[in-house]
Amino acid sequence: MAASPSTPGFRTGSLPALDFSARLSRRAQTMTASAIREILKVTQRPDVISFAGGLPAPELFPLEEIRAATGTVLDRYGPAALQYSTTEGHPPLREWIAGRHGIPAANVQIMTGSQQGLDLLGKVLIEEGDRVLVEAPTYLGALQSFQPYLPRYAQIPTDEGGIDVDALDEVLRGEPAKLLYAVPNFQNPTGRTLSLERRRRLVELTAQAGVLVIEDDPYGELRFSGEPLPSLYELGLALHGDVERNHVIYCSSFSKTLVPGLRDAWVEAASPIIRKLIQVKQGADLHTPTLNQMLITELLPLLPRQIETVRRVYGERAAHMLGQMAEHFPASVTYTRPQGGMFLWVTLPEGVNTTELLPSAVERGVAYVPGSPFFALGGGENTMRLSYSSARPEQISRGMEALGETFREALG
Amino acid sequence: MAASPSTPGFRTGSLPALDFSARLSRRAQTMTASAIREILKVTQRPDVISFAGGLPAPELFPLEEIRAATGTVLDRYGPAALQYSTTEGHPPLREWIAGRHGIPAANVQIMTGSQQGLDLLGKVLIEEGDRVLVEAPTYLGALQSFQPYLPRYAQIPTDEGGIDVDALDEVLRGEPAKLLYAVPNFQNPTGRTLSLERRRRLVELTAQAGVLVIEDDPYGELRFSGEPLPSLYELGLALHGDVERNHVIYCSSFSKTLVPGLRDAWVEAASPIIRKLIQVKQGADLHTPTLNQMLITELLPLLPRQIETVRRVYGERAAHMLGQMAEHFPASVTYTRPQGGMFLWVTLPEGVNTTELLPSAVERGVAYVPGSPFFALGGGENTMRLSYSSARPEQISRGMEALGETFREALG
Repeated sequence: MAASPSTPGFRTGSLPALDFSARLSRRAQTMTASAIREILKVTQRPDVISFAGGLPAPELFPLEEIRAATGTVLDRYGPAALQYSTTEGHPPLREWIAGRHGIPAANVQIMTGSQQGLDLLGKVLIEEGDRVLVEAPTYLGALQSFQPYLPRYAQIPTDEGGIDVDALDEVLRGEPAKLLYAVPNFQNPTGRTLSLERRRRLVELTAQAGVLVIEDDPYGELRFSGEPLPSLYELGLALHGDVERNHVIYCSSFSKTLVPGLRDAWVEAASPIIRKLIQVKQGADLHTPTLNQMLITELLPLLPRQIETVRRVYGERAAHMLGQMAEHFPASVTYTRPQGGMFLWVTLPEGVNTTELLPSAVERGVAYVPGSPFFALGGGENTMRLSYSSARPEQISRGMEALGETFREALG
Repeated sequence: MAASPSTPGFRTGSLPALDFSARLSRRAQTMTASAIREILKVTQRPDVISFAGGLPAPELFPLEEIRAATGTVLDRYGPAALQYSTTEGHPPLREWIAGRHGIPAANVQIMTGSQQGLDLLGKVLIEEGDRVLVEAPTYLGALQSFQPYLPRYAQIPTDEGGIDVDALDEVLRGEPAKLLYAVPNFQNPTGRTLSLERRRRLVELTAQAGVLVIEDDPYGELRFSGEPLPSLYELGLALHGDVERNHVIYCSSFSKTLVPGLRDAWVEAASPIIRKLIQVKQGADLHTPTLNQMLITELLPLLPRQIETVRRVYGERAAHMLGQMAEHFPASVTYTRPQGGMFLWVTLPEGVNTTELLPSAVERGVAYVPGSPFFALGGGENTMRLSYSSARPEQISRGMEALGETFREALG
């Protein structure tokens, strides 16, 4: 029914104009548009090679297998694949996930993307003003998830080996903290991996301080060099000997191993946390789409081969990018050498501002994300994140050459 | 990697046991498990005929069309159907939705189910202690979505014609309110529909008071008798003559017209609200699953025929249930006569408690939802909600007979 501007009976003349902004909650008023998002808009021009996004390589998606799985799932489950389903998630999918860590399926909650896991963990844990410890830099999306719950952040410095655990020890001796958020494997944005020794110490220090740990591990399976390390969650299990005492909460996802567009992920935690997650998820989206969970379950046998392919391709792209960077970047520009995942991190000499540098890079046909939005409390003006996961070799070659030129010009 | 209970280097002896409950936010501590959810667990026994759920009839789902649409979408979009996509939603779907009300697509935000629309509206609008006006009774899921933002509720009484607008006028003259949440068409839980005159007055009163209206309209298309009425949103458009001044926010969904398991819904609102919804949705789940939005878009041409079928079947089931209720219920038991939707509302004589009555109903093989959880501030102990949407005629006959017996016994 189309609206008519002249509905009889209304006295429109005397109506006050509503100030929508004044009606917003404080949490909404404190929010600003994502820097990455705004930058991505500029760099979606087809003539720009963008290393700014964090997109998995779409040419590796198992398209035909998903087409076939849809038929299988609709045959097997019929209308139940399209009906409302339980908040906890599709039982066979939860069973499979639980089996990875040898925990009960009751300790696994399916989420509509890892992003929802972070949002709902923020919702059940963070009280306004709670001290939340994050790496410097950290995953920007986690800051966006937590921000509406109005935490106070403390930044833990990082180096080539990940979180500086001595600095963490120092911070834990200060004001009480609610939780530590960490991405130990091939971190977004730096690509760095936390060493085994630091993992042990991190888990032990936080356990002793009674500080919860949210371990975000979307990239853990994407290791293309070096040896796998135990997750913080596994070290927590070993430390406490009991899933119900583990102070580490584990988040992961099928977005980087299978496909991101189905939005299937999960959280593993002790029962008191899981129970609250179920309650807030009911209010947040009732449940993760039924068909999507069944599709992912159907694709699980494919996962080992798929992971192998993704590892090989990302490893090749990372190696090629590092090679091109060595060739084209000035010697004063340093960068990380990831052992897996999708990102690496570039540091320019102090005084160079990568946000200010972006327009001249885009003019040369290349885009990146400036590093500073990844710092909860500021910093990193001379850093940037590059993603190699969805770039073709020739784009990487041209892109690193153009970036090298941009750097040389900036460095005079 | 399996966890080992004896990781060397850990000093487990001195670890304090973490009190997870003490680590929860206040909003999580105030939350209790959904009454409906707990009751549904009891009534999922196969020997119980349940009118407790709110499930669309699965035998009407367009299963073969969805199977075909999956192929079409994967052919047309390839890996893009499985890749990350924009937070705002699939452009052709937003265009189609916007066309229903003749508004710009920029004023439409796709949501992962209407439930997410309610959650994110609560997040951007409700400040702790804000006065939120709800119908008595109201949709329980809305209370679950809003509760984490810690509003203070005021209940507006309702009668056969929906919200009592005189009572609303009175409440609006009291303490300032942030918003009114209303389900004007075939309300969940009562099945009642707000009259045109009351709609006009509600829109005018709230506009004058500067109070936002969240109109939740998942059932509007499911009218099986009577004449369609303009939505509050359309009346708001007519009143203000401008989408950017409309104080009514509109939520609807494809869950009741197509299928619920894909979780596709939307919100229409003025730009300052939409902009904030986009920002919080980034933090909440990045975007609604890409494939699902494309599937729904592909099914849009099917919608008129599908809606016609659903209307006819639900109309038949409602009529049959009302007939059986007339035959089997004691004269002192009253009930609503819905013109559409999925629910009707039964009122027993004062003093009968439907929560206490539930076990004896279940013993007779029939289940319902007690009405009291649908009241934000309590009340309705002698009421219940029945859903006719997914019940077969013979189940309705047997169920109403069993309920009649239960009532007779309770009434002595």
